[in-house]
Amino acid sequence: MQTVRAVYERYGYEPLETPAFESWELLSAKGGGGDAIRDEIYCFKDKSGRELGLRFDLTVPLARFIASNPQLPKPFKRYQIGKVWRYDNPQAGRFREFWQADIDTIGSASVEADAECLAAAASVLKALGFKSFTVRVNNRKILSAIVKSAGLESVSVAVFRALDKLGKIGEAQTAKELRSIDPKAPKILDIIKAGFSKLNKSMDGVSELGALVAACKVYGLDIVPDLSLVRGLDYYTGSIFEIEAGGGVGSIAGGGRYDRLIGSFGGQDLPAVGISIGIDRVAELLKETTATEKKVYIAIVKDELRGDAIRLANALRAEGIQALVDVSAKDLRKQLEYVNSNAIPFVLFVGPAEVKAGSFTLRDMKTGKETKLTPKKIAEFLA
Amino acid sequence: MQTVRAVYERYGYEPLETPAFESWELLSAKGGGGDAIRDEIYCFKDKSGRELGLRFDLTVPLARFIASNPQLPKPFKRYQIGKVWRYDNPQAGRFREFWQADIDTIGSASVEADAECLAAAASVLKALGFKSFTVRVNNRKILSAIVKSAGLESVSVAVFRALDKLGKIGEAQTAKELRSIDPKAPKILDIIKAGFSKLNKSMDGVSELGALVAACKVYGLDIVPDLSLVRGLDYYTGSIFEIEAGGGVGSIAGGGRYDRLIGSFGGQDLPAVGISIGIDRVAELLKETTATEKKVYIAIVKDELRGDAIRLANALRAEGIQALVDVSAKDLRKQLEYVNSNAIPFVLFVGPAEVKAGSFTLRDMKTGKETKLTPKKIAEFLA
Repeated sequence: MQTVRAVYERYGYEPLETPAFESWELLSAKGGGGDAIRDEIYCFKDKSGRELGLRFDLTVPLARFIASNPQLPKPFKRYQIGKVWRYDNPQAGRFREFWQADIDTIGSASVEADAECLAAAASVLKALGFKSFTVRVNNRKILSAIVKSAGLESVSVAVFRALDKLGKIGEAQTAKELRSIDPKAPKILDIIKAGFSKLNKSMDGVSELGALVAACKVYGLDIVPDLSLVRGLDYYTGSIFEIEAGGGVGSIAGGGRYDRLIGSFGGQDLPAVGISIGIDRVAELLKETTATEKKVYIAIVKDELRGDAIRLANALRAEGIQALVDVSAKDLRKQLEYVNSNAIPFVLFVGPAEVKAGSFTLRDMKTGKETKLTPKKIAEFLA
Repeated sequence: MQTVRAVYERYGYEPLETPAFESWELLSAKGGGGDAIRDEIYCFKDKSGRELGLRFDLTVPLARFIASNPQLPKPFKRYQIGKVWRYDNPQAGRFREFWQADIDTIGSASVEADAECLAAAASVLKALGFKSFTVRVNNRKILSAIVKSAGLESVSVAVFRALDKLGKIGEAQTAKELRSIDPKAPKILDIIKAGFSKLNKSMDGVSELGALVAACKVYGLDIVPDLSLVRGLDYYTGSIFEIEAGGGVGSIAGGGRYDRLIGSFGGQDLPAVGISIGIDRVAELLKETTATEKKVYIAIVKDELRGDAIRLANALRAEGIQALVDVSAKDLRKQLEYVNSNAIPFVLFVGPAEVKAGSFTLRDMKTGKETKLTPKKIAEFLA
């Protein structure tokens, strides 16, 4: 999270926090997350009878904040790293409580804002050590134009929802589902399979998506137009994006443009775009190399030397070393058992001879090698 | 939070996360937070009818985790920085949603564990720049012994609650409240006012509190025994502590020993001690000096130079500089208006002559001073 924060800030996004719960009315509003998400909101009443819900993303609370603070200078660029909740079936990479790390730019209708979001998210992934990932992009305007050209405007939400499953359930099943909506609907699949390059250049959204591809190139970022990308939330109005990095955890980031969400909360319409990185999925892929190697256990050979051990530990802590001291009056044998069961890499022995000599034995628990060091040299050695 | 995390880790506490909500049964259990807290829990039912509540602290969820994971090596030392929720009347320094940063040591009954918690919390405050703060300590065993000696054991919870208000409502009001519990109760105030040093050394808890004072001295930490310290939560069994740093925000940290909480959740009794730093109050006192001075706005003089501006921004970001570029196709005048309204300290102008010369004008917006710099020198200059 420190890396995410640092990279987001370099791109000029500033921190903003919103509360964990919002009014149920807001979270369930039309033009917000949509039916599917609405069913997944944890909702409750507080003691004054207000209906509340836990936020299902960080975008809706941000839109509420912007709508009620119209005085903020635009573009307003913010980041937020926070928990969100969805009453979903827990499965690999999908939890009921999870972390999102969002950036958003409010008040710019330009694809430059979209490109900057994608570039910042890509920079985060690179800074975290991801060697390769795929950025797929689409545009809700294109999807709407395709649906309209097929005469299916009245059932567009159902069609979008069916298309959203293409990657999961495959073409045959999707075609079947589309047919159940309208006999004309399956032909949409042919347009989508033909791909972005085959679309009529004058179609709504096509030049916008082309401009986004070009704008991302300036950042050295190659993005892949994919007409089958839909995104599950109702509030998107233009660009939509998803980032995948394999590993079987699905997309690790997603977002898009939501130019009508803020207006729907009572403010004026304000163009807005954002992206959200799924921290839990990213962490799953990174398999988080835990704990520092700069970790040492100060073993107390005789209990009357506890003070010496604590002072030595504090001196090491001041140098940024993680230093542990027994707090259970364990004897030396038990202390070393603890070191082993917690896989602590180094032990420093504090015995009467060591204290007298002002020089301590540091044992590398992997190699068994021992080194005599003065307190000053220990931090240096471990660092 | 980065500082808190770093200092806690140096003391050997490891990160552990628990969910935002727990079962209502757990949160409201007897021997947990107690009646006052129970009334402040946000509770709700999920779709399967389970009664849940948002956590009111980080200790109860930890105790639940420990009770259901008895295999963990002891002492188990963890830290957690997370949000908690209380349906309280919002007031200065008291929110309905707030951050706590906790450390706990599970499995040690020694005052050494208590002292280490206090020392770690004090180190955090020092690392955050606090010059002075007061650590007040007491022991629930002493309070119980005093109440027992006055023959008030049967109403001890009510007596504790009245004593807890001493600092807020003053002696006269507290005496009145104690009298309403039992005519004998006000005399407890005399014992408390006489102070720790006047207590019978053989009284339960007295030698323990004395040992804690001595153990803290090893860390160079002076703590102040204060018999009027009670703490609001029911689960404490031994040492209790509070840290204050003035500024009218009340205590900024608090905690104590809770040796029976884990056992009450179905596991075996395990000695445990912890302390919680109130992040919002600490932040309030620090008045958080926001934003870095290493912040520069790259002004695009002509729109065809946008690519040059973005590449320059990316080069600066790679050096850790916060670099902003227009994403709204604003003209130069509007870009500079944005710089002013956001108080951005530096502007770098990207115009045709600058791009050609490979040297850019950096304007310090406070002094108006301009410096010509090559891209390589800009990061150096700003750093």
